Amino acid sequence: MVVRSLYRVIYGDTDQMGFVYYANYYRLFEMGRNEYLRERGLTYREIEEKGLRLPVTESKCKYRSPAYYDDLLTVETRITKARGARIRFFYEIKNEEGKLLASGETEHANVDESGKVCRLEPELIEILAPEG
Amino acid sequence: MVVRSLYRVIYGDTDQMGFVYYANYYRLFEMGRNEYLRERGLTYREIEEKGLRLPVTESKCKYRSPAYYDDLLTVETRITKARGARIRFFYEIKNEEGKLLASGETEHANVDESGKVCRLEPELIEILAPEG
Amino acid sequence: MVVRSLYRVIYGDTDQMGFVYYANYYRLFEMGRNEYLRERGLTYREIEEKGLRLPVTESKCKYRSPAYYDDLLTVETRITKARGARIRFFYEIKNEEGKLLASGETEHANVDESGKVCRLEPELIEILAPEG
Amino acid sequence: MVVRSLYRVIYGDTDQMGFVYYANYYRLFEMGRNEYLRERGLTYREIEEKGLRLPVTESKCKYRSPAYYDDLLTVETRITKARGARIRFFYEIKNEEGKLLASGETEHANVDESGKVCRLEPELIEILAPEG
Repeated sequence: MVVRSLYRVIYGDTDQMGFVYYANYYRLFEMGRNEYLRERGLTYREIEEKGLRLPVTESKCKYRSPAYYDDLLTVETRITKARGARIRFFYEIKNEEGKLLASGETEHANVDESGKVCRLEPELIEILAPEG
Repeated sequence: MVVRSLYRVIYGDTDQMGFVYYANYYRLFEMGRNEYLRERGLTYREIEEKGLRLPVTESKCKYRSPAYYDDLLTVETRITKARGARIRFFYEIKNEEGKLLASGETEHANVDESGKVCRLEPELIEILAPEG
Repeated sequence: MVVRSLYRVIYGDTDQMGFVYYANYYRLFEMGRNEYLRERGLTYREIEEKGLRLPVTESKCKYRSPAYYDDLLTVETRITKARGARIRFFYEIKNEEGKLLASGETEHANVDESGKVCRLEPELIEILAPEG
Repeated sequence: MVVRSLYRVIYGDTDQMGFVYYANYYRLFEMGRNEYLRERGLTYREIEEKGLRLPVTESKCKYRSPAYYDDLLTVETRITKARGARIRFFYEIKNEEGKLLASGETEHANVDESGKVCRLEPELIEILAPEG
């Protein structure tokens, strides 16, 4: 399953090189996974209310082509892993012409309110499972 | 009393106009007031531990001259009001030549843990008082 | 004329107080004025291509009520002045219940490519004029 | 060679989980490599004046332990590769107790003013070489 989210680049996202600052792609990734979870019928807020946290344990991004001010970007988000205590998201950012500008991944640990890593509940895996 | 803090501008602070993005001056203001409180002998973390919060109720900034990438900026922070339930900070941002680039203000309400606005404790006013 | 833009709050917009960080409202204001200009038929990119810049000379914001993670915010943008070499925008940020969370203003100078402040062209005033 | 840079965490760096937002570590990485180049006797500004750019082509970060508001962080920066048209930086972020909180890498392409990837000049490699 792929979820698409749209974002229009503002000045505040760019730097003086004239394109989106490299750290800001990770904000777009977060937007993507929020929308992904919403599409799957659960908001991050609901996950939090269940006492679960999904802190990022790893993130990476490959920058292929710059994104510019005023570009209307699409973030395509997938889950590539939801097993044990780990969830992995994969993201692709494209411009209006469909050109791939950047791709990346984040890995998240499932953590309870006390901060302890714990296995994903079966019902959560079912919702998130990559083959779902 | 004036407290001076130093900050070196990174790429991530600039935008494609080639200078520091207007919203990022407010990050510098926050850095300035953190350092101010620390100089006065109390960290914001300690204020929080006392169950107090100082959310911003108002902010403003005048931009006189641009700040550039790699500039070593000085933030000069003063308290101009500490009365009732309000604290007001005043900031000036200068470059290495001492040129004034921007000035601004923030007003803060003194709020307890339940979110209720309440008068500043006399001991806090004494520490923060502008004439102090 | 009022232009409305929607924005869903992400984690990256909040701080540890649990609501949107005070500087990030200015990012929303920028989004609002971009959309405003687009609605009026000219993008900021086009303004730039004409060799015009609209750097911010002043900004302010009043924070009335916090905005939370996952809130769907509406930014309402108006122009309150377009005269001489100055443009002034006014913004209101509301949540899904229509509650006013914050309001603010930005003032911009009309600057040519060499950085000189210059009067707004009549055709630009006509497009932007508050009564328009 | 290792270069150490200090940074005090502000509110604006944190999110509502109560620690530094995952994307903001990349801002610290940028600060680290700016300081690294400065230590080696060349500022990024000078690199730019030579008509060179070093856009990021890849970035990653592993998050081991959270960084909190008011923490005084040390960014330790090394160059692990400076060959052909590529430079690779490696970063470690530690707190005041010397605990490793996060580590990461960025890869940069050497690009001339026209945007063409080109081999690093021997003099630049000499300055940057990992064994240097």
